Amino acid sequence: MRFLHTADWHIGKKLHDYSLVEEQLEAFSQIKKIAQTEQVDAVVIAGDLYDRSLPSETAVTLVDQMLYELNLKANLPLLVISGNHDSAVRLATGSDWYKQTDFYVHTKLSQAFESIELKDVQFFLLPYFELQAARNYFDEEIKNITEALQRIVALMQERFDPEKKHVLVAHFFVAGSLRTASETSLEIGGLDAVPAEVFQVFDHVALGHLHDKDASQAEHIKYSGSLLKYSIAEATREKGVWIVDTESKTTKWCALKPLHDIKLLKGTFAELTAPKSFQSITAETFTALELTDEHPVIDAMSRLRQYYPRLLELKWQKQPNSRSKQRQKVKQQTPLELLAGFFEQTTGQEMTRLQADLAKECLEKLRQKEDV
Amino acid sequence: MRFLHTADWHIGKKLHDYSLVEEQLEAFSQIKKIAQTEQVDAVVIAGDLYDRSLPSETAVTLVDQMLYELNLKANLPLLVISGNHDSAVRLATGSDWYKQTDFYVHTKLSQAFESIELKDVQFFLLPYFELQAARNYFDEEIKNITEALQRIVALMQERFDPEKKHVLVAHFFVAGSLRTASETSLEIGGLDAVPAEVFQVFDHVALGHLHDKDASQAEHIKYSGSLLKYSIAEATREKGVWIVDTESKTTKWCALKPLHDIKLLKGTFAELTAPKSFQSITAETFTALELTDEHPVIDAMSRLRQYYPRLLELKWQKQPNSRSKQRQKVKQQTPLELLAGFFEQTTGQEMTRLQADLAKECLEKLRQKEDV
Repeated sequence: MRFLHTADWHIGKKLHDYSLVEEQLEAFSQIKKIAQTEQVDAVVIAGDLYDRSLPSETAVTLVDQMLYELNLKANLPLLVISGNHDSAVRLATGSDWYKQTDFYVHTKLSQAFESIELKDVQFFLLPYFELQAARNYFDEEIKNITEALQRIVALMQERFDPEKKHVLVAHFFVAGSLRTASETSLEIGGLDAVPAEVFQVFDHVALGHLHDKDASQAEHIKYSGSLLKYSIAEATREKGVWIVDTESKTTKWCALKPLHDIKLLKGTFAELTAPKSFQSITAETFTALELTDEHPVIDAMSRLRQYYPRLLELKWQKQPNSRSKQRQKVKQQTPLELLAGFFEQTTGQEMTRLQADLAKECLEKLRQKEDV
Repeated sequence: MRFLHTADWHIGKKLHDYSLVEEQLEAFSQIKKIAQTEQVDAVVIAGDLYDRSLPSETAVTLVDQMLYELNLKANLPLLVISGNHDSAVRLATGSDWYKQTDFYVHTKLSQAFESIELKDVQFFLLPYFELQAARNYFDEEIKNITEALQRIVALMQERFDPEKKHVLVAHFFVAGSLRTASETSLEIGGLDAVPAEVFQVFDHVALGHLHDKDASQAEHIKYSGSLLKYSIAEATREKGVWIVDTESKTTKWCALKPLHDIKLLKGTFAELTAPKSFQSITAETFTALELTDEHPVIDAMSRLRQYYPRLLELKWQKQPNSRSKQRQKVKQQTPLELLAGFFEQTTGQEMTRLQADLAKECLEKLRQKEDV
């Protein structure tokens, strides 16, 4: 059989306060098309459908609509697990009804052992779980997540139908994989990395959790990566889905074209505000800029935002050290010295004698007022 | 056909900080039994399944389980609308799948006109709606909720199948009905009372919103009342469900036996702490007590709680006026007078001369300390 593997939709997530609803809908619509073009027999969603355990009404409506389109409209079997961002309980609502149309949502560890058979494949849907849940399930002391997974895989193996291929769908951190900024240490959530060898009994492992498709090095263990670029660190990483063919044992990458991309640009303030730079992208493009100017640029963020309305981040190439030295220097200056420096930076000229006298006089008056 | 009519489950609601999960589960289990015994063809739930728009995970699990038992286990068609306490959006999740097993959840005004036919009946499920939603739907100025309902009913009537009986399921406030304390003015939520005449085209109207089964006076317009007694004001009101027979045009009341009732008791402190009083109820009974003592009883609430562990409220029969006068008097007393009064109340005796001198001395020392 052929199935489409996606994960980490994070519906409801915002990018630096920008809503991503439009972007998520567009990415979903591309996934739906890929599923149709590739004529897959099922769609796997390996956790983190939602960005938070208490999703907004908007997020709830979006996810419900997406699942409806795949399962009830396109008649595709769905194999879904909860990730660490989902509320297992909330995601499970209605799952008894969903089953009737081959839409399986597994949110409890115990459900991982109820395999689902579709065509030549036996699927095992292992939701995200905490170590304590594994200890409770096996009613034994289990040292770490690797040991838990060894126990889980062994139990699954007992249920293997030798006539079938075996596919694991799971949501955790496989050893040797890369991380990006939007999976913060909090999100990795106490899950130690599990060695890839634990999963060699499976024909294929479809994972969620890490946002990068290249996060796992093993050929038959794949992260699909996230639906969108969810952090600046993911700006250069391509997003998409895997088409897994269990018969030919091949995987095929289908990239998604972002509706609004994240672009990294670097240059001086003058370069970045030249048409050549800002006209290279649309106004809706999310940007992270790096300024290479030697000297401070007054109010750079808000001035650059006029050229890059969806500016997410502004960095300075200069060493933090030299900047903090500069800050130190500023602290030691008199008000008149500060004003003179500011004048020079903004006008590009030194104060004249007359201007300096005038400034001195004003500052003196201000000081007297403050003393009162 | 015969259907069971219930409403206002308010799953997740607490009674003065006491969880009601056990009580709600027990009431539900009785409803399930009644549905089986009475061999109904469907169950109507007329809104407010949840107590709040953002229900807890516990509440979500409970409701999901209850609906599962009725629809998928007992194979009963379910006709459900959202009430003002539900989040229409959250309640609607999964409803496209539910339909497949005759479980209909209507949460949008537009769905009110998609009638559902079961046996000899055409059901119209009108969810709770705000006046603005009706204005948007009809794209016209609509003065008040009565006018909105006239428009809605007229549109439903156009869709009437003359061969069928017509039943409306709705959630609002019908004129001439009674109110109880747990439907606060906030909960009545801007819904003016609608005259009963608006609904005369229906064979039967099954309502939610008011918690009292006798809230509506009309024979064919019924409130089922709430699942439990959700306020002290409801203590004396029987809870239950209606069995509606559309052929014989009869309704039958089936009472629910509360797992833990709310009892109102009245008497002096001595009477209420006598075994005859507190042994008349179980320790789990919720109580609201009224003290008839002439004189204040020190620490009455916590002392009575030893006899009535689930004491919800303590009232005094005395006029608030005389109590506030007493408070005024207390404010004017000196510390020594206050102490003397307190001594007399607790010991039943006046202070002796020696005791008064000792008290005076202590108070003087305290005063001096405070001055330092």
